[in-house]
Amino acid sequence: MSTIQIKSPYVIFLGDIQDKTLAKTGAGLAKWCEPDVLGQVRLSNCKVDLNLADLTLEQALEQGAKSLVIGVAPVGGSIQASWLPTFVKALENGMDIINGLHTDLATIPDLVKAQSRGTGRVINVRQVTEEMPIATGRKRQGLRLLTVGTDCAVGKKYTALELTRALNAEHINATFRATGQTGIMIAGEGLPIDSVVSDFVSGAAELISPDNAADHWDIIEGQGSLFNPSFSAVSMGLLHGSQPDAIVLCHDVARERVSTCPGYPLPALQNCIDLHLQCARIVNPNVRCIGVSINTSSLEPRTRRAYLDKIQAELGLPCVDPLVDGCDALVTALFEQFHQPLGQLHAK
Amino acid sequence: MSTIQIKSPYVIFLGDIQDKTLAKTGAGLAKWCEPDVLGQVRLSNCKVDLNLADLTLEQALEQGAKSLVIGVAPVGGSIQASWLPTFVKALENGMDIINGLHTDLATIPDLVKAQSRGTGRVINVRQVTEEMPIATGRKRQGLRLLTVGTDCAVGKKYTALELTRALNAEHINATFRATGQTGIMIAGEGLPIDSVVSDFVSGAAELISPDNAADHWDIIEGQGSLFNPSFSAVSMGLLHGSQPDAIVLCHDVARERVSTCPGYPLPALQNCIDLHLQCARIVNPNVRCIGVSINTSSLEPRTRRAYLDKIQAELGLPCVDPLVDGCDALVTALFEQFHQPLGQLHAK
Repeated sequence: MSTIQIKSPYVIFLGDIQDKTLAKTGAGLAKWCEPDVLGQVRLSNCKVDLNLADLTLEQALEQGAKSLVIGVAPVGGSIQASWLPTFVKALENGMDIINGLHTDLATIPDLVKAQSRGTGRVINVRQVTEEMPIATGRKRQGLRLLTVGTDCAVGKKYTALELTRALNAEHINATFRATGQTGIMIAGEGLPIDSVVSDFVSGAAELISPDNAADHWDIIEGQGSLFNPSFSAVSMGLLHGSQPDAIVLCHDVARERVSTCPGYPLPALQNCIDLHLQCARIVNPNVRCIGVSINTSSLEPRTRRAYLDKIQAELGLPCVDPLVDGCDALVTALFEQFHQPLGQLHAK
Repeated sequence: MSTIQIKSPYVIFLGDIQDKTLAKTGAGLAKWCEPDVLGQVRLSNCKVDLNLADLTLEQALEQGAKSLVIGVAPVGGSIQASWLPTFVKALENGMDIINGLHTDLATIPDLVKAQSRGTGRVINVRQVTEEMPIATGRKRQGLRLLTVGTDCAVGKKYTALELTRALNAEHINATFRATGQTGIMIAGEGLPIDSVVSDFVSGAAELISPDNAADHWDIIEGQGSLFNPSFSAVSMGLLHGSQPDAIVLCHDVARERVSTCPGYPLPALQNCIDLHLQCARIVNPNVRCIGVSINTSSLEPRTRRAYLDKIQAELGLPCVDPLVDGCDALVTALFEQFHQPLGQLHAK
């Protein structure tokens, strides 16, 4: 039983797309994974450029590329026929293909055959194929922070990534732990927790965040919300398997209703923090909320800071938009509450 | 997208087992499903008798049996070679085989072949094979009660069955809704909710309990506990998909620690009720706990009643051991709180 692993270094495949908005995955990898990315592989009529080195597949292989990561998501999420020759060649030459699209590449006969001829494998980062363990609830060494949310898609992944970067910049030993397909591509490892059979969700979350050094932080990408009736099972399993020492609440100021259930208003931030803490205390009585991360992109720049200050005063917690402010205020809060004296606090 | 369906009437297959404790499933069916059970099918050296009509497979077919339900669970959960000729003949003659064992019958070549020759199907009640929907959170017509628990295996299924029977005895329109393999065998329908991919748990729970008459009660079999860190994802998804109007808390007085996580004490009953209500209010603000069901089989008969009375006084809720007391006190509570005036209450 193990997490999904992406072999690096790799190249980002952009195919023949014409529109940069379809290359979000590739752009994310270019932003977050610079040391792992050798360059971009584009077909001759591709109009998108991520400002990476342009490589042919042969050049990528010469430079030691171990994976070809599909960095584009066409509308509908399907693979184009024009991409297949590149994929076939990659598999035959021992490169893995990393697929985050909805199309299951195992249903494409050419790729199945190519896989059987070569040593490359198709890795589907949306799907857990291995058997997962049942959670034991055993306390693991090391510290854990989980980003939780008022809903899906409110910045939990982005906040976890930015926070990990900010902690590392302060020489704090921290690792981003991915639980969704984009996160897994960025981290090069992880489990798409929402594809795990419900009996094993907490067990998968335990697997994602194993024992570590006593002062090490796992910064775990949250999923869904306890207040989203479609996906609260995923959120609950992830919360209990993560056993977080700290949570950060994520929210999008433009979101008023639960994305998948428009009949449901979003919870008040304080209520959302309270319920997540209450449920988390079952597995970690010392858990605390150290701050709030809000996507304020829908606000005018001049009202943004006032809004964050108001929330900060109401909740008594640091409140940032990580895209604008970074995560320094969260790092400071974490440092104050845990880092000194780290060992003693955690041993309690 | 649909639930698992068992065609009735059926016969209970006991194979050649020697020990009655291995025939719990069959005994449960004999107890709860009398109108659906034509009899038992036993091999010549079987030593267990459920006091049902003994039928050969041919007689079962003549009497119109549509399914052969495997009513035994040998140690290790595997199928015996001596059973296969009966299974092959059943499939060839259009009977379904209902399997709740861990062994996947699709891995046995003789049965796969027999299935292709006949019209009978192997139905695995442990496994959801169809795609499940994402929950919408839409309010469905009808009333719903979910049994919740302090842990796994504390009587949630038994309580739901007994409560359904007691409600029906009072001419209240109520249906037991099964969410686990034994429950599905008893109900003849349902979904093994713990085998559903986590993203779809709430959606599966919505499917189990569809729109119904305004005064109809679905009595839904709960799973796990929000306080069991191994299975809380299942419990949360089931709670949110069920949108219960009422819950009954189930507990086993002998249980002190979470079954799968021995480092975790069981919650106090009041805390357990509170958290389940708090989470259920997200989908149904009017939800209430109408009583408590406790397995007291580990207590001396003379201390049993005193114990239940004490809990009843502490919680201010009717408290029964359904195996001893039945569920009349719960029916009365439900009747008082919902039945008069039923329509108005639910419309609020």
